[in-house]
Amino acid sequence: MDQRTTPLLPSYVGGRWQAPSDEGVPVHDAVTGAAVARISSAGIDMRAALAHGREVGGPALRELTFHQRAALLKALASHLQEHREELYRLSARGGATRGDAKVDVDGGIGALFAYSSKGRRELPNATVHVEGAPEPLGKGGTFVGQHVCTPLRGVAVQINAFNFPVWGPLEKFAPAFLAGMPTLIKPASQTAYLTHRLVELVVDSGLLPAGSVQLVCGGAGDLLDHVGPQDVVSFTGSASTAQRLRAHPAIVRHSVRFNAEADSLNCSILGPDAIPGTTEFDLFVKQLVTEMTVKAGQKCTAIRRALVPAELLDEVAAAAGERLARVVVGAPDADGVRMGALASLEQREEVRRSLKSLLGAGSVVFGDPDRVEVVGADAERGAFLSPVLVRCDDPERSEPHEVEAFGPVAALLPYRSTEHAVELAARGQGSLAGSVVTGDPEFARDVVLGAAPWHGRLLVLDADDAGESTGHGSPLPNLVHGGPGRAGGGEELGGIRSVLHHMQRTAVQGSPAVLTGVTGRWVPGAPRAAEDEHPFRKPLARLRVGDSVVAGPRRVTAEDVAHFAEFTGDTFYAHTDEAAARENPLFGGVVAHGYLVVSFAAGLFVSPEPGPVLANYGLENLRFLTPVKPGDELTVTLTAKQITPRENADYGEVRWDTDVTNADGDSVAKYDVLTLVAKEDR
Amino acid sequence: MDQRTTPLLPSYVGGRWQAPSDEGVPVHDAVTGAAVARISSAGIDMRAALAHGREVGGPALRELTFHQRAALLKALASHLQEHREELYRLSARGGATRGDAKVDVDGGIGALFAYSSKGRRELPNATVHVEGAPEPLGKGGTFVGQHVCTPLRGVAVQINAFNFPVWGPLEKFAPAFLAGMPTLIKPASQTAYLTHRLVELVVDSGLLPAGSVQLVCGGAGDLLDHVGPQDVVSFTGSASTAQRLRAHPAIVRHSVRFNAEADSLNCSILGPDAIPGTTEFDLFVKQLVTEMTVKAGQKCTAIRRALVPAELLDEVAAAAGERLARVVVGAPDADGVRMGALASLEQREEVRRSLKSLLGAGSVVFGDPDRVEVVGADAERGAFLSPVLVRCDDPERSEPHEVEAFGPVAALLPYRSTEHAVELAARGQGSLAGSVVTGDPEFARDVVLGAAPWHGRLLVLDADDAGESTGHGSPLPNLVHGGPGRAGGGEELGGIRSVLHHMQRTAVQGSPAVLTGVTGRWVPGAPRAAEDEHPFRKPLARLRVGDSVVAGPRRVTAEDVAHFAEFTGDTFYAHTDEAAARENPLFGGVVAHGYLVVSFAAGLFVSPEPGPVLANYGLENLRFLTPVKPGDELTVTLTAKQITPRENADYGEVRWDTDVTNADGDSVAKYDVLTLVAKEDR
Repeated sequence: MDQRTTPLLPSYVGGRWQAPSDEGVPVHDAVTGAAVARISSAGIDMRAALAHGREVGGPALRELTFHQRAALLKALASHLQEHREELYRLSARGGATRGDAKVDVDGGIGALFAYSSKGRRELPNATVHVEGAPEPLGKGGTFVGQHVCTPLRGVAVQINAFNFPVWGPLEKFAPAFLAGMPTLIKPASQTAYLTHRLVELVVDSGLLPAGSVQLVCGGAGDLLDHVGPQDVVSFTGSASTAQRLRAHPAIVRHSVRFNAEADSLNCSILGPDAIPGTTEFDLFVKQLVTEMTVKAGQKCTAIRRALVPAELLDEVAAAAGERLARVVVGAPDADGVRMGALASLEQREEVRRSLKSLLGAGSVVFGDPDRVEVVGADAERGAFLSPVLVRCDDPERSEPHEVEAFGPVAALLPYRSTEHAVELAARGQGSLAGSVVTGDPEFARDVVLGAAPWHGRLLVLDADDAGESTGHGSPLPNLVHGGPGRAGGGEELGGIRSVLHHMQRTAVQGSPAVLTGVTGRWVPGAPRAAEDEHPFRKPLARLRVGDSVVAGPRRVTAEDVAHFAEFTGDTFYAHTDEAAARENPLFGGVVAHGYLVVSFAAGLFVSPEPGPVLANYGLENLRFLTPVKPGDELTVTLTAKQITPRENADYGEVRWDTDVTNADGDSVAKYDVLTLVAKEDR
Repeated sequence: MDQRTTPLLPSYVGGRWQAPSDEGVPVHDAVTGAAVARISSAGIDMRAALAHGREVGGPALRELTFHQRAALLKALASHLQEHREELYRLSARGGATRGDAKVDVDGGIGALFAYSSKGRRELPNATVHVEGAPEPLGKGGTFVGQHVCTPLRGVAVQINAFNFPVWGPLEKFAPAFLAGMPTLIKPASQTAYLTHRLVELVVDSGLLPAGSVQLVCGGAGDLLDHVGPQDVVSFTGSASTAQRLRAHPAIVRHSVRFNAEADSLNCSILGPDAIPGTTEFDLFVKQLVTEMTVKAGQKCTAIRRALVPAELLDEVAAAAGERLARVVVGAPDADGVRMGALASLEQREEVRRSLKSLLGAGSVVFGDPDRVEVVGADAERGAFLSPVLVRCDDPERSEPHEVEAFGPVAALLPYRSTEHAVELAARGQGSLAGSVVTGDPEFARDVVLGAAPWHGRLLVLDADDAGESTGHGSPLPNLVHGGPGRAGGGEELGGIRSVLHHMQRTAVQGSPAVLTGVTGRWVPGAPRAAEDEHPFRKPLARLRVGDSVVAGPRRVTAEDVAHFAEFTGDTFYAHTDEAAARENPLFGGVVAHGYLVVSFAAGLFVSPEPGPVLANYGLENLRFLTPVKPGDELTVTLTAKQITPRENADYGEVRWDTDVTNADGDSVAKYDVLTLVAKEDR
C-alpha cells in the first residue's frame, strides 16, 4: 500500500493545524489491518505549544466565570452529540462494536454534560472559588482565614490511552476547562485518528476561547521537558509508563501535579449467599462476561480477578463458560457480533504474552488464546482474540494478582472466608474499581470497608440496584475515578474535586473587610453598607454584598410562646411547662420555639410589597445559640453575603447572612437565608 | 572530649527503645560547640519498624473512633504542656531563644489541641468518614453513590527538618493519628536530641496505643526502600532533597503519597499607599525584621524577598536597618538577646555561601556576613551570624528569586506597579507563604488574586488585623501549609483536609440500604425501621439510624396562612395578596410561608413530654421544593440519619432526615433537624 494515500494527521497547536515535518508512521485498522492514517509530531514545537496555552488560552479562560465555562461545556456537548454517528463509525476501525463506541463517545459527551451541571450547581458564578467557611483566627474577630481556589496558570497536559480515544480526552478536559485551565491533548498513536477528529469537531464548533484546546498527534517528544510548576500532567495507561512519567525530571523538579490512572488488577467478589439460582449469582456471571468482552476487555477498570467462594468455583466456571460461548466475535459492524477486535496486532501479542504467564498458575476454563472463530473478518489480519477465562485453584500464587492481560481475559480464584476475600482483593496492590455481588448486607459491609483502602470505587451489586446499576467497569463523572498504589494513586474524576485539582488552594488571612474584597463574598465581621434602601427592594443589578437591613426589636411574650405552641401543635414541654423546662439542663425554664424565633425574624426583615425578591427557597446552617426567654427582645440583621446571577435566567440566587440577637447583643440564632432575586426591576 | 561521655540516642521501634549498633556521630551544641549527643540508626531494622506500625499500630488505631483519637490527642497535648519548660531548655542547645522555643514547642502542642478540636467538631464519632452527600446515580433511587474515607493501612513516615524539632513531628503526627494511621518519625540529625526527648515524653505518657509512634534517630538508611502503596511519606526540608525523595523508586513504584514542604523564596509586598508614617509602613518593617531574626531566620516560611515600591526602597532600607541594629545576638539564655545561633556551624557555612551568591546581585544594607557582636557566647565556636539585609536594585536578576540563604537574610527589591509586584512574587516559582502589607483593599485584592496560584498562604496585614495577626511566618493547623512548585507542591496542614490525606477516598455504589449499612448513616431511600415507639422517646442507647416517625396529615388553611402573616409580621405579598401572588412567576397564587410549613411540621413530629431529646439546636440544608397552597395537607417523615454520641458527656447529637410532603406525595420541604439527645433514659 502506498503510504501517501493515507492521510497524515496534523496537530492543532498555537491556534492552527500544523502538519508534521516528516512522513509519519502508519496506524492500522484493527479489523482489516489496512492503514488508517499516518501520524508524527516531528517539527511540532512543544515549548511553544505550552506557551500558547499559558499565554493565550489561560488568560481567555480566566476571563470567564465558572458558570460561563459550564455553559460552554454544555454547548460543546450538544454540538458533539450531533456528530456521534460519525464518531461511532470511526470507532469501528479501532475494533469497537457500536456498543463499545457508545461507551466511549456517549461517555465522553456525558462527562461534559455532567461537569457543566456540577459547575452550575456547586461553583459560584464568579472567577474565584471560595472553599469552606471562614476560619476565625483571633478572638476579637479582626483576623480571619479563608481558603480560595484560583486556576493554575499553566496547561493541563493529558497523555491518553488508546482504549478510550473520545472519553479519555473529554473526561480530563471537562474539569480542567471548568477550572479555567487550557488543555493539551496527546492521544495514544493507535487510535489517534479518532481523537484527531474529535478535536477537529471541537475546533470547528468555534465555541471555545482560542488556546483552550491543543492537540499533539504522534510522540510526546520533549513535551514534558517543558512543563513547569503551574502545569498539570494527567496520564492514563500502563502502570509502568505511569512510573516513568512520574519520575520525569521536570515533573519532579517543579512538583508538577501528576495524576495517573493506570490499569489495575480489579476484582469482583461473589458473596457466599449468592449460590446458583439466586439473582446475585446470575448478576455476577453476567457482569463478569460483560466486563471481559466490552471493548474486548481493553478497559483499565475491567474485572481481572473473579473471587468466588471455593465451594462455588465449579459452578461459576461452568456458568461463565456457557455465557462466553454465546459471545460472537468478529467485525464490529457485522450482524450479531458482540465483541470486536483488540486495538492492534501488537496489542494482541502483548495479551498473549501475559496470558502465557498467567497460565503458569492456572488452566483455561473457556477460550483458546491462539485461535478464535470470527464473523465478517479475517481472524489473523484483524486483531481478534477469543475471550479467555482462566481458573487458578491456588489463589496464593502471585500471577493472577500481578499479571494483567489487557484484553478479554479474567482469572477465577477461590476464597475461603470474608477475611480471605478482603486479603486477596488487596493483593492487587491498589485498584481502580472492585465489585461485590451479594444479597447479604453484612458481607457487603465487611468487604467494602475491608477493601476500601485499596480501591477508588467499589460497587455493591444486588437484586435491589441491578436495574439501575451502571456496572463494575463504568467510571462516573461525579464519583472518584482512580485508585491507590498500582492504579496510579490518582483521582481523575470525582466532581468538583477534580476541578480543584486544576486550581491552587490558598489560605488567605486578613481582616473580614479585606477577605470580603478578595473573595467577593461578605465575610462576617466586615462592614455592612450604609442602609439607604431595604436590600429586598434592590434587584441584582443594584444589590451589592454587604447591603443589609437591621430590623426590630420585637419583644417575645409568654403569650406569643403559648400561642405558637397551640397554633403549630409544637407543645414540647420546654415551651409549655415551666416546671419541666426548669429541669432541662440546657434551658432552665420555658423558652421560645426556635421556629418562632426564625418566623418572627422573617416578620422583621421582610419587605412585603412585590419587588425583586421572588422567593425564599431555603435556609442553611441554622444554629440556635442562646435560648430566647419570654420577655426577650429580638433584633435581626440581614446582610447580602453571596450573589449568584444565573447565566440563562432573569434572576439569580442571593444568600443572606442572618443574625438574630437579643437585647444583650448575644446571637440567639444564626443562619443563611436563600432567596431568588430578579436581575432587574420588574 | 571523650565521645563516650555524651549520650548515644536510642531509637524507638518495634515497641522498645533500641540502641544503634555502632557508636554514632556527635551532634553539637549550636552555642558552645560541645557535643550534645551521638546518633546513629545503624542496626535498626527499617522493614521491621514499618511492619510493626502496619501490624500493631494500625489495627489498634483503627479500633478507635475519630472522637476517641481526638480525645487522646488532647490528653497528649495536656501531658506535653506540663513538660514545656524542659523542652524550652533543651531548645537553647540548638541556638533557640525562649521566644524561638515557644514557637516550636507551643506551636507543636497547639497543633495537637487544634486537631483534637477539629476532629470532634468536623468528624463523626465513628471509624469511617462519610464525605459529601449521597450522589443519586439513577432516576429510580435504587442506585446511589457515596464517598467514604477509610484510614490507609500503612505507616505515616515523616522526615523532618532540623529547625522545628518539636512542631515538625507533631504537626504531621496529629492528622495522621486522627486519621487512624501510625507514625514513624525521622528527625534531622542536628536537633534529634530534642525530638528524641519529645518521643520519650509521648511514650512515657502511656496514652497512645502501642505502635502508634516510632522514632528513628540517625540516617534514614533503607527506610524508604520498604514503603508500600498504603504508606504516606511527608518530608520537610530543602527543595533539592524533596526532589530526590519524590523520585525514590519505591515511592514512584507504589504511587506512595508523598507530601513535601520545602523552604521557598517567600515574599512580603509593601503597598504603595504604605508610605513612611503610616501604620502599614511600620508593620511591614517590623514584620520583616521579625521574620529575619526569629529562629535566626531558619524558617521555611520566612521572608526572603521584600518587595517595595521603587520610590520607597531607600526609606524601607533605612528603617529596617535601624531596627536590625537593635537586635542583640548571643547565647539564647543571655539577658537581652533577641536572636540566638544558627543550628550548626555547617549551617552557617551554608548560609554564607548562599549570601555570597546573593551579593552578586546586590549590596549589603545591614549586617556583616563575616562577623557579628555576640553576647554571652563565643562568636566563632557558636554558630552565630549577623542578620544581613541585602538590597538588589535590579529586581529582574535571578539571584534574589532563586538563591535561598536559610538564615537571618532577606533581600530588598523594588517594584514598579501592581502587575510587576505580582510578576516578581511569581518568580519564586512557588512559595509557602507571602504577605501584603497595605491599607488599600484594592491593591490587596489584586495582589492576592494575582499571586494566589503561586502561594499556599497569603497574609494581608493592615492596621485592622495587626493586633490579632499571627504573622507572615506562622502556619496554622486549620489553614493550608505548603505551596506549589518549588515549595514542594504539598499541603501538610489545613484541618480535616490533611487528615484525609492519610485516608483513602472510595466511591461506594449500591442501593440506599447497602450504603446505610456500609456508612452507618441513613441514606435517603433506605428502608425505615418499623415504628414501634416514637423515636424521640429513645435515648441514644436504644436509638438506631433508620428509626422514624410519620406524622400528619395536617391541612393548611387560608386562615392559617393569614393568621401566621399577622402573628409573625411576615406579610410578604405572596402570602397575603392573591392578585399580586398570581403575578409571581414561581407561585401563581397565595402560598403558605416556608416558616409556617416547618413550624407545622415540628408540631406534627414533636413528642411533647420530657424525654431523651433535650433540644433542637439547629437545622440544615432546608429547601422548599413545592409551594404549599391553602388547602394542602402536610405529612412529615422524620428519620434518624446520623447518631453522634459525645465522648465526654451524657448526650450526643442526632441528625434527623426530615421530609414534608403534600397529599400528592410530593416533597414540599426537605431538611435535617439537629437535636441533642441523652445517652440513657433520665
